Amino acid sequence: MIGVFGANGFIGRRVVERLARSGEAVRAVSRHLDAQLVQRLSGKVDFVEASLADPIAMASSLVDVEIVVQLASTSSPGLGNKFNAADIRDNVIPHVEFLQACVMAGVERYVFISSGGTVYGPTTAIPIREDHPTNPISSHGLTKLTIEKYIQMHGHVDGLDYVILRLANAFGPGQTFRKGQGLIPAILERHRKGLPVQVVGDGSARRDYVFIDDVIEAIVSSIQAPRGQKQILNIGSGESRSVIEVLAGIEEALCQSITREHVVSRRTDVDTNQRDITRAGKVLNWRPRTRFNEGLVRMLKEDYPSFLDR
Amino acid sequence: MIGVFGANGFIGRRVVERLARSGEAVRAVSRHLDAQLVQRLSGKVDFVEASLADPIAMASSLVDVEIVVQLASTSSPGLGNKFNAADIRDNVIPHVEFLQACVMAGVERYVFISSGGTVYGPTTAIPIREDHPTNPISSHGLTKLTIEKYIQMHGHVDGLDYVILRLANAFGPGQTFRKGQGLIPAILERHRKGLPVQVVGDGSARRDYVFIDDVIEAIVSSIQAPRGQKQILNIGSGESRSVIEVLAGIEEALCQSITREHVVSRRTDVDTNQRDITRAGKVLNWRPRTRFNEGLVRMLKEDYPSFLDR
Repeated sequence: MIGVFGANGFIGRRVVERLARSGEAVRAVSRHLDAQLVQRLSGKVDFVEASLADPIAMASSLVDVEIVVQLASTSSPGLGNKFNAADIRDNVIPHVEFLQACVMAGVERYVFISSGGTVYGPTTAIPIREDHPTNPISSHGLTKLTIEKYIQMHGHVDGLDYVILRLANAFGPGQTFRKGQGLIPAILERHRKGLPVQVVGDGSARRDYVFIDDVIEAIVSSIQAPRGQKQILNIGSGESRSVIEVLAGIEEALCQSITREHVVSRRTDVDTNQRDITRAGKVLNWRPRTRFNEGLVRMLKEDYPSFLDR
Repeated sequence: MIGVFGANGFIGRRVVERLARSGEAVRAVSRHLDAQLVQRLSGKVDFVEASLADPIAMASSLVDVEIVVQLASTSSPGLGNKFNAADIRDNVIPHVEFLQACVMAGVERYVFISSGGTVYGPTTAIPIREDHPTNPISSHGLTKLTIEKYIQMHGHVDGLDYVILRLANAFGPGQTFRKGQGLIPAILERHRKGLPVQVVGDGSARRDYVFIDDVIEAIVSSIQAPRGQKQILNIGSGESRSVIEVLAGIEEALCQSITREHVVSRRTDVDTNQRDITRAGKVLNWRPRTRFNEGLVRMLKEDYPSFLDR
């Protein structure tokens, strides 16, 4: 059985649906499960409402699980470095305890979604390969890196298989603006409300935007890869786009112009972020298949159909 | 003023004495202060009994401190991976909170004693340079590495100067067997009690043993180095010795033979450990000056004079 932890998030929901559609035995675990999701997949997925911070609930949710897909996270890149100790307490410690529970439960493989945008820190080479130094400059990046290191330790000491996916900026249908994450839903949300879009600095900061279904296929390939994996892999589109270019792409998709205002820069952001995805191609036989503009249109059709009717 | 935190340990005491002898203004902070140490240095050193886990006490102990030497640690390499979450809770979190307090207090430089023996993990190249991958396989190594990463983050984001010393196995006078750390005092203690010395595996595991006063001079050089340091430096003898060779060295210094017994190997140990100390030589104009046998004799004279009388 595949256990998906953090099953109610943007990526989690889509992973669960994709696995259920393929007829896989899936247990979907989350602190809060969405009633619609549960209803839609009832009978096909074993839903468990439990928190990563509850060791007993976690241990029981691991029964019969061979492969864990870990997406649960309490930290948020937007909060900067104001809550470093709280991030460790609420995010790293429960995760480290969960890892030990996985080892004790006999889990064979651990698929972890890490942060390609924050674990590397200031870049010394572009595009960034997986062996680039990892010196995060944000609490979010540090918690992700620390968890990566604990996973690698259990890989070495306890023989746990792992695939750590250092994910670029995923976007697509189902991405909500709730948590202050995601440039594209933030732009669409401001535009929907008739507010100007806030552009940080001069809008030249480049990110790698990868379509959600390409991410899902990378996770599925990580689940299906042969035994003996100890992998850290960049997952992204392999391209980078500035905020200004993203805005232009959205304007094109909408056939509308978007008003904007410039705001001061956040300090802990890494300015350019283009990852080398060659390794994931070799190891997982995976590559991103959705072009940026195609992904945008699919997102608009599903999440903002009214925009396209205008 | 120089603040020495963890001032009551093997290294801490000797740093405090060395700095006081040079006429430096020193504040010595520890959870438990030794009455003899306090008495011997009274009037020369500002002693504060306070725990790293007490944020208010730490903030007040940082008043007027420009340079922090951080030696406090609750984790122990000998405990393996049984207490991963506790190690993070009791060691990493107080340390991360302390770092933020240092930044708020305007501390200019942070000198941190890290673990050259555990932060690198399985070695891919010998001798180990500072840019070697860091994938610890013990909880102790992971806590040290995590703290290093937080220091580097504050270096980048807040402009904090830092010198991280990745220390080999320090030995010398004042090293006690209390915590189960240190091969040489362990050997001497067993021998003193008339018990056979326990040799792990076949005794071929090599470590880099550096004399305490060479370590102290590396710390003093780190304190005195010009502004603008963002350094990670290996500190060791630059040589490695097997357990069998250490035993032979002690037998030679004592002119006595030592009985031994072989026990099974601990799993999380890294087997060979020789660090490249070139960088510390360049940055700090430092080199180890005490030969292994010379250090052993000095240790025996101070801590085990009865052995030499026989």
